[in-house]
Amino acid sequence: MSVREMLNTHPMTDGQVSDALVACIEQCFRCGSVCASCADACLGEEMVASLRRCIQLNLDCAVICLATGQVAIRRTSENREVLMKMIDACARACAACGEECARHAESHEHCRVCADECHRCEDACREALTLMQ
Amino acid sequence: MSVREMLNTHPMTDGQVSDALVACIEQCFRCGSVCASCADACLGEEMVASLRRCIQLNLDCAVICLATGQVAIRRTSENREVLMKMIDACARACAACGEECARHAESHEHCRVCADECHRCEDACREALTLMQ
Amino acid sequence: MSVREMLNTHPMTDGQVSDALVACIEQCFRCGSVCASCADACLGEEMVASLRRCIQLNLDCAVICLATGQVAIRRTSENREVLMKMIDACARACAACGEECARHAESHEHCRVCADECHRCEDACREALTLMQ
Amino acid sequence: MSVREMLNTHPMTDGQVSDALVACIEQCFRCGSVCASCADACLGEEMVASLRRCIQLNLDCAVICLATGQVAIRRTSENREVLMKMIDACARACAACGEECARHAESHEHCRVCADECHRCEDACREALTLMQ
Repeated sequence: MSVREMLNTHPMTDGQVSDALVACIEQCFRCGSVCASCADACLGEEMVASLRRCIQLNLDCAVICLATGQVAIRRTSENREVLMKMIDACARACAACGEECARHAESHEHCRVCADECHRCEDACREALTLMQ
Repeated sequence: MSVREMLNTHPMTDGQVSDALVACIEQCFRCGSVCASCADACLGEEMVASLRRCIQLNLDCAVICLATGQVAIRRTSENREVLMKMIDACARACAACGEECARHAESHEHCRVCADECHRCEDACREALTLMQ
Repeated sequence: MSVREMLNTHPMTDGQVSDALVACIEQCFRCGSVCASCADACLGEEMVASLRRCIQLNLDCAVICLATGQVAIRRTSENREVLMKMIDACARACAACGEECARHAESHEHCRVCADECHRCEDACREALTLMQ
Repeated sequence: MSVREMLNTHPMTDGQVSDALVACIEQCFRCGSVCASCADACLGEEMVASLRRCIQLNLDCAVICLATGQVAIRRTSENREVLMKMIDACARACAACGEECARHAESHEHCRVCADECHRCEDACREALTLMQ
């Protein structure tokens, strides 16, 4: 639980970071790594030509999740509008990627794992957003 | 002009990528590097304690610009809603960072250069968005 | 255990990815997020002027860990020399950051957590390297 | 030339940053964007199945170039050993990617552009390394 531990000892948060935001940050880093892996696993499949869209959505989702995690983990200055826009973009990227991966979940186990991870990350982003509004 | 050259030879664009999107992509990578540099230059200033907010906004803007550039450069599959949300988030990050840097532009030349770059990137993002709507 | 789950279902690994490499990948993403957080927590400290070096090493380590994790997770094509150089660079970045953070571990709990994380990541990188040689 | 402009106004460099390092930083950001684009262009080709290795090397090179640019642009604290290891890893990633792209340069114009860019980045990295030794 390293993100929670870090944010509890941050000089400007007084441990006041919501569980929803901590979960969102952790899920962003986790989903970013899974999507990077799924893009690569899809690239290795025989039917790669029919997985093009899945690969691009995975790559986009990986980049956006990792960027969102990095922005959300910074608590020194309030930059709430930008953070909310990033979390919203991340939720949409996860929704799009999760939906595409779910289509190949029966043929490719990595797409099933990735779809689940994307849905968890989308949910975590939406819960964090709800609390920030 | 390597981005234009690359997109002109992309198998799925037929050179049909708008100048506005090419400018947006180039400006994102450029502004991302300048913001990373400005965060570091501010960190090196004697008055670092009063530049905290500037440093955080610079770091956020750097991450968001580089992520947006990477998402926008991919043209294989249409993922327009996510792309538009990222470009919008990027425009807001640039606006916030440019505004903060402009406040220290007289004391710190690197903040003046960075503020100019952020404003150019914000404009490029908004023009690309307008065309996509 | 999402990285292990992903790599077990990758079409080209046959579950043959060593535990050491899986641990290295997971630790890279984890350490990357912790270092990004520690840079920000240091920036929020009153004594920020004396934490400049810690902040830069944290930012470098965050970028290098996240990059190394992304390169290491790709298993489609062998690019062993580049991967080993990245893991080696990552081990050195973690060593430098962990050493600097350890100096402030008594004053700043976030530096203590980060130093521990860096040392774990350095160890994981070295073990993965040893197995690859 | 925004990187030169930024480093000239950095409080700790006194304009003492070598042209070789400035060129290396600029080339890293440029090559990072071109490789991200080439991965995507290859993904869009009919013969994508035979471009798998090219795509992975492009993705690796993009991540490593962008990470190296971000580490090299920071001048506040000396972290020379880590920086040199990253520039070295980047030179190798560019060499591998440039070599692979050169193989498809006749069939795919984007691979020709990317191979050229990789070779320029490799050269810029090696020149910066030579000066730092």
